[in-house]
Amino acid sequence: MRSRLLHEVAGLRTFVVVMDKGDDAAEELARFARDNAVTGAGLTAVGACREATLAYFDREEMTYQDIPVTEQAEVLSMLGDIAVQPGRSGSGQDEPALHVHAVLGLRDGSTVGGHVRRAVVWPTLEVVVTESPAHLRKRVDEETGLALIRLDVS
Amino acid sequence: MRSRLLHEVAGLRTFVVVMDKGDDAAEELARFARDNAVTGAGLTAVGACREATLAYFDREEMTYQDIPVTEQAEVLSMLGDIAVQPGRSGSGQDEPALHVHAVLGLRDGSTVGGHVRRAVVWPTLEVVVTESPAHLRKRVDEETGLALIRLDVS
Amino acid sequence: MRSRLLHEVAGLRTFVVVMDKGDDAAEELARFARDNAVTGAGLTAVGACREATLAYFDREEMTYQDIPVTEQAEVLSMLGDIAVQPGRSGSGQDEPALHVHAVLGLRDGSTVGGHVRRAVVWPTLEVVVTESPAHLRKRVDEETGLALIRLDVS
Repeated sequence: MRSRLLHEVAGLRTFVVVMDKGDDAAEELARFARDNAVTGAGLTAVGACREATLAYFDREEMTYQDIPVTEQAEVLSMLGDIAVQPGRSGSGQDEPALHVHAVLGLRDGSTVGGHVRRAVVWPTLEVVVTESPAHLRKRVDEETGLALIRLDVS
Repeated sequence: MRSRLLHEVAGLRTFVVVMDKGDDAAEELARFARDNAVTGAGLTAVGACREATLAYFDREEMTYQDIPVTEQAEVLSMLGDIAVQPGRSGSGQDEPALHVHAVLGLRDGSTVGGHVRRAVVWPTLEVVVTESPAHLRKRVDEETGLALIRLDVS
Repeated sequence: MRSRLLHEVAGLRTFVVVMDKGDDAAEELARFARDNAVTGAGLTAVGACREATLAYFDREEMTYQDIPVTEQAEVLSMLGDIAVQPGRSGSGQDEPALHVHAVLGLRDGSTVGGHVRRAVVWPTLEVVVTESPAHLRKRVDEETGLALIRLDVS
């Protein structure tokens, strides 16, 4: 994974992040966010991957169900955001929380999509990360256990 | 639905709009646009919904055909714009015109997509609305009856 | 195809490009990039097309396989970027390189997606092109023969 700051307007940074062959996009994006102290941002990406683990949120079970993708696929769309989630570890440090969804395209043009847990890039994935000025903070929703953006508290 | 102005550069506002459980995203986005006098903007969103009415434009019938989605679905992508459509009501007032498309992801990773008529959010939908400076005005296309963006008239 | 400069902040231009009925979106976007000297940009679009040629990159053959779409389809998402590819012709001039992926929606809500080779617009396609300051230059990847963005060389 390599990244470059494209520009900065009014303190808001826009980065391009280019994944290398074999990178897990989810892991590398979290690392990128930590390394660059990105605490609120939107992202879009296109490229391709050689395997992936997507997920669907099951309302009955209140948990994500994995959807494995075991073949080469075009990343037709990848959209999401990076926010801050209060630290759950002993350190109490805030951690970047990725909320990223993707639609993948298979050989015959059919598509498969879901929440991105893992996406092993091949040969490339080009991600544009656009920073937001306000820190988008998340809190755990009691009903679902999911970390959702809260706008009601500064 | 709650919204927050994220930043404003050269008079152009960027908002984040977070839908609540049970909100109809189409209805709430139109309300958000009216309340904030947004007359030209692009938008992207990810999240999930518990039911939706998508639509396909039928070239023969020159009308939208509904595609009902009656199960919990990930909103894998939601992209579109907000423009101004000349008022059709007696008041003659301009109204925000939403042109939003979505791809939804089901339990097995299969996808369903179309023009968004209604999308009942659950548990969340995070929308970023980026204002454009020029008012994007629409006019009704004679052949299709659809309101399309016109660039040839200021 | 008609385009309009929406705004320019810190030398970075944002355009809206509206395709006409019958335009090939891939061809017109390349023409737009040449005409406006756009050498690094991201783009998003929604609209519809009456036919298209999408493609899937075959890892074994190291070449794109066509996926023809021969019916009216909603353009549910179109995401990509414009970069500069070193000229391959005798002129040696740099050329805009489009890397654009799309998800199309059919009558029953099913979707088909891939790399966009051709997309014949009907009735409209609304594209937002957002310029990046650094020229995103591409180089040919030896393994795949594809032009990938290089960040390691200024």
